[in-house]
Amino acid sequence: MHANRPITIKDIARKFKCSPSTVSRALNDHYSINEDTRKNIQEYAKKVGYQRNSVSLSLLNKKTDSLGIVVPTIGNYHESSIIDGLYSVLQPQGYILNICATNESFLLEAEYISKLLANRVECIFLSVSQETYDAGHNEHLETIIQRGVPLIFIDREYEGFTASRVTVDDYHGAYAVVEHLINMGCKRIAHLKGPNALTVSEQRFAGYLDCLRRHNLPIREELIINTNFKVDSAILPTKHLLELASPPDAIFGVNDQVAIGAMRVVKDKGLNVPHDVSVVGFDNSPISAYTYPSLTTVSRPGREIGIEASRLFLSHLTALAESPIEAIRLPSNLIIRESSLRMMKQSP
Amino acid sequence: MHANRPITIKDIARKFKCSPSTVSRALNDHYSINEDTRKNIQEYAKKVGYQRNSVSLSLLNKKTDSLGIVVPTIGNYHESSIIDGLYSVLQPQGYILNICATNESFLLEAEYISKLLANRVECIFLSVSQETYDAGHNEHLETIIQRGVPLIFIDREYEGFTASRVTVDDYHGAYAVVEHLINMGCKRIAHLKGPNALTVSEQRFAGYLDCLRRHNLPIREELIINTNFKVDSAILPTKHLLELASPPDAIFGVNDQVAIGAMRVVKDKGLNVPHDVSVVGFDNSPISAYTYPSLTTVSRPGREIGIEASRLFLSHLTALAESPIEAIRLPSNLIIRESSLRMMKQSP
Repeated sequence: MHANRPITIKDIARKFKCSPSTVSRALNDHYSINEDTRKNIQEYAKKVGYQRNSVSLSLLNKKTDSLGIVVPTIGNYHESSIIDGLYSVLQPQGYILNICATNESFLLEAEYISKLLANRVECIFLSVSQETYDAGHNEHLETIIQRGVPLIFIDREYEGFTASRVTVDDYHGAYAVVEHLINMGCKRIAHLKGPNALTVSEQRFAGYLDCLRRHNLPIREELIINTNFKVDSAILPTKHLLELASPPDAIFGVNDQVAIGAMRVVKDKGLNVPHDVSVVGFDNSPISAYTYPSLTTVSRPGREIGIEASRLFLSHLTALAESPIEAIRLPSNLIIRESSLRMMKQSP
Repeated sequence: MHANRPITIKDIARKFKCSPSTVSRALNDHYSINEDTRKNIQEYAKKVGYQRNSVSLSLLNKKTDSLGIVVPTIGNYHESSIIDGLYSVLQPQGYILNICATNESFLLEAEYISKLLANRVECIFLSVSQETYDAGHNEHLETIIQRGVPLIFIDREYEGFTASRVTVDDYHGAYAVVEHLINMGCKRIAHLKGPNALTVSEQRFAGYLDCLRRHNLPIREELIINTNFKVDSAILPTKHLLELASPPDAIFGVNDQVAIGAMRVVKDKGLNVPHDVSVVGFDNSPISAYTYPSLTTVSRPGREIGIEASRLFLSHLTALAESPIEAIRLPSNLIIRESSLRMMKQSP
């Protein structure tokens, strides 16, 4: 066999009735291959005089200076702030960022990740799509780990999956903004909720529920309606809320876009914001300070998510041993503006 | 010479006292090499028995399925619409989009382009940064062409540089919105202008100027103030406008963000929009329909820019001969809403 031409990985794979990639991993002492199998393959390779092809190896191991960023959308202020944070640290280090928008589709997310791996990105920053949560898929995340590529969740994590992550404490932000409404005298606080199952929606929802409970206010299901984060998804739900026999005296929008949509409907009904209906949002997007009235909201440190995630990646690079998994949770902050500052009403 | 080892491109380059890349281009019949030189090099290569190294060629010519998108920012509605349009056509074709945000810096633009070329992208879609215009740089654009990589301008072109482009007719959009203000009875129309030298700013400005001239209205320099497209850049200029001895009765913002900032200042002054001061924007961003009052604006087909640019790239791929340079200019449309619908005043 070795008389005629050099031994290749394929020859060894044929001998062991396994795939060439298994042989390659075994020769590289990869943990995913059973220890006995590794030992057998390594001994056989030595015996038959297998030599690595250093030219193709150098091509395969070439530093690509490319990183993958997979996010549900790039059109929102929040996602573009995260990306801005990543740019601010990684671009001066010479990295190219491959940005992929999944539009909340699991299939697109899996396809992008597979392409990014094929293009040999050095890290994948992922904000998980809604479908991925809903369907409970994580095979594509396993693939990233198996390839030895660092995976860092940004903003939206896949709960229960072991990887580093940088997220925001939405729960306490939501709790704080709802408590502020209660302190302003609001008693029937509606919530225009984000899509179900997304961590960012559910955490804000949990903060809302717990705050009402803590203040002994009833939780009324008719005051909780879903939206999709977009301004126009708030219009019909808000109209519906205002037509209830006992309409809300405050509306907590899952983000600023939704709150701005709600505010418009309240004003079209001839009602005053904040005195008839207070409206609050989430994100502290630039426009929120300049709407009329300006919008009470919760600031999320999007840029800091990007900066912290970059720092995690760079520490992976310089780590001597395998890096530990890190989970960073950044605080959110209540920003009080005109849309909730009402005259206190005396309780009857 | 050929007795011992195969002739390489370097050997030929030494003979002709030129760079190996010149030899490579000459052998590939590249138009950038003088025709006589090409012929001499090709004849010599044939004579000495030069053989292409097909292994390294196949690595070099490998389809990477990667495309470069270089834009000034990804945070604005308009840019994210363009990118959305590119995604919608190119992602189903299996392409990965490398998105780079230059933050209006020429140095970053040049660096990103050089990295994209090193990563062998198959096309570069570019919306030129402000600094690139200001400084009159185009060496980095020449490099793209020399490498034989298609370059397509999206939205912001580099005037005078020969490459395909998809842009929007901002001039007539601006003309139409200013004419609408004049039809509503406005006589002192201010313009919160975009940064100087950018085509998108200058075209809107030209539409504004020509419309005033056409209607025999004076052009008053104190009514023209620069902004940077961001909502907060409109605040001080608008305050200044309202403090003039003869303040404007309408404000034309270079985009919706600037118009929304202006609207807020007008209302803070206790003035009514549209009756005291009409306000109009540009972009038709989703929020513009839900501000209070809703904003008159000009829709720009951002998504269509992306779709048309993708189409140009795909037609490059399938073209039998060299593709012709194409320049596509998409129309913009006036969207009339509450912020400019005032009762007509009779002329004195």
